[in-house]
Amino acid sequence: MKDRLLVIKVGGNIIDDEKKLSSFLKSFSSVKSHKILVHGGGKIATDIGNKLGIESKYINGRRITDDETIDLVTMVYGGLINKKIVAQLQSFNCNAIGLTGADGNIIPATKRVVKDVDFGWAGDIDNSKVQNQNLKALINNDFVPVFASLTHDEHGHILNTNADTIASSLAVALSINYDVRLIYCFERKGVLENIDDNNSVINLINKEKYKQLLDEQKLFAGILPKIDNAFAAIDAGVKEVLIGDANDLIQNTTGNTIGTLITQ
Amino acid sequence: MKDRLLVIKVGGNIIDDEKKLSSFLKSFSSVKSHKILVHGGGKIATDIGNKLGIESKYINGRRITDDETIDLVTMVYGGLINKKIVAQLQSFNCNAIGLTGADGNIIPATKRVVKDVDFGWAGDIDNSKVQNQNLKALINNDFVPVFASLTHDEHGHILNTNADTIASSLAVALSINYDVRLIYCFERKGVLENIDDNNSVINLINKEKYKQLLDEQKLFAGILPKIDNAFAAIDAGVKEVLIGDANDLIQNTTGNTIGTLITQ
Repeated sequence: MKDRLLVIKVGGNIIDDEKKLSSFLKSFSSVKSHKILVHGGGKIATDIGNKLGIESKYINGRRITDDETIDLVTMVYGGLINKKIVAQLQSFNCNAIGLTGADGNIIPATKRVVKDVDFGWAGDIDNSKVQNQNLKALINNDFVPVFASLTHDEHGHILNTNADTIASSLAVALSINYDVRLIYCFERKGVLENIDDNNSVINLINKEKYKQLLDEQKLFAGILPKIDNAFAAIDAGVKEVLIGDANDLIQNTTGNTIGTLITQ
Repeated sequence: MKDRLLVIKVGGNIIDDEKKLSSFLKSFSSVKSHKILVHGGGKIATDIGNKLGIESKYINGRRITDDETIDLVTMVYGGLINKKIVAQLQSFNCNAIGLTGADGNIIPATKRVVKDVDFGWAGDIDNSKVQNQNLKALINNDFVPVFASLTHDEHGHILNTNADTIASSLAVALSINYDVRLIYCFERKGVLENIDDNNSVINLINKEKYKQLLDEQKLFAGILPKIDNAFAAIDAGVKEVLIGDANDLIQNTTGNTIGTLITQ
């Protein structure tokens, strides 16, 4: 039987709020299981970038990571945010170790090929190349890996990679070794039947239920890519995906979840 | 018999020069031994601090680490410099993992007590508290730890700590498990008999020789604290300390050293 592993992704809305972050990290620390945290960037990088005169550039809503920007996110995600999270987790007796995908070559990636748009130093992951043995060595030695949303190209360059994607790739790669629950913390209680009612959480979505919900056109359009990604992770070996509120983390690691559990 | 371990400290003069750094990291990668790299900050933190309007503050020649400054060095040392070094080392097939003293609680420290001067978020290390078991777990799993010169207070705060001190503390703590050679890379070939002649390296200094050199007043005053620190590390269990040029790293890891070897 495989050990259980939680891969938990926390986003910008929590990172940007000192109190919420501290409360979330306290909950995270108290969860008794093998676990990995993946964090996004929040507004801090944009704020520091503005002060440094580095303009945020977007094409079709997607960030362009030029030379200045990759240095900025390497500093802010990989340094400031990551190490502050590690120091706080350590204060809660959680043996955190702060990493990027470059560390231990855990997440090698490929610089996105230029077609119509040059995204710059953006990294795409091939899940089969994730070095799960190196990551497993850390977990088996009771470290709790905390990943900033950065990878590398194996030729000396750091790459910027979406935090949701990193969480999913780690979950898939480690599903060979562990029973993985991938948890996406977001700003709602879960997938809602009625977008205006935070109490209308759909507790369980399997493929059959998803088809039914799509037929009934009940779901908020913005949630569809998240659910599609969840099923992609499940098809690649992840046992279950949970989408829920960061405040409900502890309950969402149990059998009695508050958020939306997505399974085969 | 204990395995051999090299603890190598590289300073700002190398960090600031992209070509020198790359050449040094290539040499470092090629050294066949358990090894740890400790790096200082260089001028990059000052430059970025200037752009962000963070003034460097010194009292009696010592840096004051206020709230803004600790965030700055956490970003720059722990993020930008550390992760760029890791990515480069990985490109040279060295399995680097970038750390601060907060990661894995490896270097707990104490915020410096305010007497005449408030140094702010400056951390002092008690060598006996270094978590060498966590560090050993990394080394035994073939990771090469790369430390930025940051520690933490175990209460959620990152602290700024001198890179020479970190290198010495790690060397002392690990001397229980390994035969440690601590190597300080600096801007000269070694300890010089004649400060103006880079070919006048004193190849070996033991306590007797040191006493003789002091009696003869041959040594450049600035080198005395370095030698005193070296003997302090040796008295605390480190097998030998080497002071030499970063360019001579490979030779200085052999039995046929170019720099100055300091032993009991």
